[in-house]
Amino acid sequence: MIQDHEFISFKEVPGPTKEEIRCLLLCKSEVSNEDIVVDIGCGTGGITTDFAKVAKKVISIDKNPNAIELTSKNIKKHGVFENVDLIENDAISALKSIENFDIVIIGGSGGDLDEILELVFSKLNKNGRIIVTGILIETKYVAIKKLKSLGLEPKVVEVTISRGNSIGLGTMMLAENPIAIISSKIK
Amino acid sequence: MIQDHEFISFKEVPGPTKEEIRCLLLCKSEVSNEDIVVDIGCGTGGITTDFAKVAKKVISIDKNPNAIELTSKNIKKHGVFENVDLIENDAISALKSIENFDIVIIGGSGGDLDEILELVFSKLNKNGRIIVTGILIETKYVAIKKLKSLGLEPKVVEVTISRGNSIGLGTMMLAENPIAIISSKIK
Amino acid sequence: MIQDHEFISFKEVPGPTKEEIRCLLLCKSEVSNEDIVVDIGCGTGGITTDFAKVAKKVISIDKNPNAIELTSKNIKKHGVFENVDLIENDAISALKSIENFDIVIIGGSGGDLDEILELVFSKLNKNGRIIVTGILIETKYVAIKKLKSLGLEPKVVEVTISRGNSIGLGTMMLAENPIAIISSKIK
Amino acid sequence: MIQDHEFISFKEVPGPTKEEIRCLLLCKSEVSNEDIVVDIGCGTGGITTDFAKVAKKVISIDKNPNAIELTSKNIKKHGVFENVDLIENDAISALKSIENFDIVIIGGSGGDLDEILELVFSKLNKNGRIIVTGILIETKYVAIKKLKSLGLEPKVVEVTISRGNSIGLGTMMLAENPIAIISSKIK
Repeated sequence: MIQDHEFISFKEVPGPTKEEIRCLLLCKSEVSNEDIVVDIGCGTGGITTDFAKVAKKVISIDKNPNAIELTSKNIKKHGVFENVDLIENDAISALKSIENFDIVIIGGSGGDLDEILELVFSKLNKNGRIIVTGILIETKYVAIKKLKSLGLEPKVVEVTISRGNSIGLGTMMLAENPIAIISSKIK
Repeated sequence: MIQDHEFISFKEVPGPTKEEIRCLLLCKSEVSNEDIVVDIGCGTGGITTDFAKVAKKVISIDKNPNAIELTSKNIKKHGVFENVDLIENDAISALKSIENFDIVIIGGSGGDLDEILELVFSKLNKNGRIIVTGILIETKYVAIKKLKSLGLEPKVVEVTISRGNSIGLGTMMLAENPIAIISSKIK
Repeated sequence: MIQDHEFISFKEVPGPTKEEIRCLLLCKSEVSNEDIVVDIGCGTGGITTDFAKVAKKVISIDKNPNAIELTSKNIKKHGVFENVDLIENDAISALKSIENFDIVIIGGSGGDLDEILELVFSKLNKNGRIIVTGILIETKYVAIKKLKSLGLEPKVVEVTISRGNSIGLGTMMLAENPIAIISSKIK
Repeated sequence: MIQDHEFISFKEVPGPTKEEIRCLLLCKSEVSNEDIVVDIGCGTGGITTDFAKVAKKVISIDKNPNAIELTSKNIKKHGVFENVDLIENDAISALKSIENFDIVIIGGSGGDLDEILELVFSKLNKNGRIIVTGILIETKYVAIKKLKSLGLEPKVVEVTISRGNSIGLGTMMLAENPIAIISSKIK
């Protein structure tokens, strides 16, 4: 895995999604080289970069132009720009312009999660996978409720990571903020 | 409980021990108004302040003069200075000057945990309680091993707290670093 | 604190609330001997027992007759039955029969959390405190949303405890399920 | 990823290592199809199975004949038996019989972690990776100390996973026990 510090970052753009979470997203999504992946709220581009190494194509969306610029820098830095499309737009508008896809990772929804999930559900290919990452209690609630109302059975894991920091006297554990991964597969 | 921001703090002095941990230390120690308490590595004075509200007497030790000054300020701010003795010295030297006591809270040991625990064990009253808080893997290991070698049965809990932070879109959970509470009672 | 195994328990009744969580509830509620406390969904009676040791009076409500019987046994076992009233009823009906109170701990709501919080809010004394414990994502969401809509500023902490279990080779950490404590104070 | 319930399990054999941890081990080890992997304490065979899907060869060691039988069943069930060698022996003896390798995953050490790490260190190829998983405080301490004494810089992460369980009223989070992943790369 690319380590967190190997991504270029801007102060005003969130991310990158921590190494361990990116790793779990790769596993949970079961991404293969036949998959078209949509990354909603690509931020620093950590998820885009990792998925672009495996997937057929990644379409990355962010309404923040700084995020798009940063993702562009990071995919170039890590040599995976050829199969990435960047769209600077809000998620709803951007999704309307996309035909269909196999996997969607929703990291940022700007309050439109309900509508995004409906739209995503209508455009996913057979065996499509929807993954929502949530750091807000409200995101977890809305994602679970909406996915259930779409007839899916969301699987929820909450992940808390602490990292050892070697200080003079020993190894101090420093906590990362907890993050939920909510995943569904369309049958 | 006094909230964390209600303590005066200096950048170079660790603490205060988070509200929830101070609360658990009060419970685990079963402190009453008959107890003499020793707080080793008093830092900001959070634990000293809380225990001084309940205990007969608190003896607070820190080798860092800034910590002693800060603890002094905080016990005054919270009106509990009358039953607190402050000792600016390393733990070993300070403990040698103390007769006996009922409860010891060891938050900072500067690498001398083994020797501190031996000394503490020899000075504790009947029904005495030893509580070690550890943020280092090494502290946990040494405390458990030494307490067992003294014939005690240490109880270990590791506590991870996340706090909700109300941001525009919802409630974001921010993690505090994990901390272990290792407690033993002399029978 | 009373340890978890010191409570009588029935398999079909949840609880007791773990020692560390009961400890935090005592601290967060700032309970004193002048307070009337309502415990909604008293289950095994762990919270009732701890609060009855400090409060003026505890009114404990559960619609499950087994829970009421079990709480009755536990308050007797721990000698705090004199200032406890037990009500076998659903929370809404029971609350309607109570005049006013200072603290409410809501551990079980059976899906009526919105209505319970409204009713509780109308009956709390000045400086009253509302505390909701949640193990469901949905409970956390509903509690935060409703408390905000009542003009309160809920504080949220999520607590994860692991306990050391001494096995042959060392100390294995066993996790308890995470629990959220959502607390509000009426000004 | 193979889900935990897709492994055959015996009550008396620990494992399988949880899905999310197996996923993180694949990422942290940077396993490729050129790597020879040694799995010490293979237990149920979860790690062996996942690594055998990617690696050139996996050598799996356990002194418990039930574990070897179970791992054998699981690699067959998941179709990856061709590149797996099973050794029923203690780790020290088994390692002595192996030439060299690229990655070692140490999940069970039976108290011999120090000696195992020394032996492993002497047999690893250039760019070799050592990964220790620890559920005991003692394992974490010994692994970190020994790896440092071998001149390595161990990276430590502690992972706590909770899983959502859909019950009538909502989504209850159930905690898995915390586990540390301690990884080192030989330069």
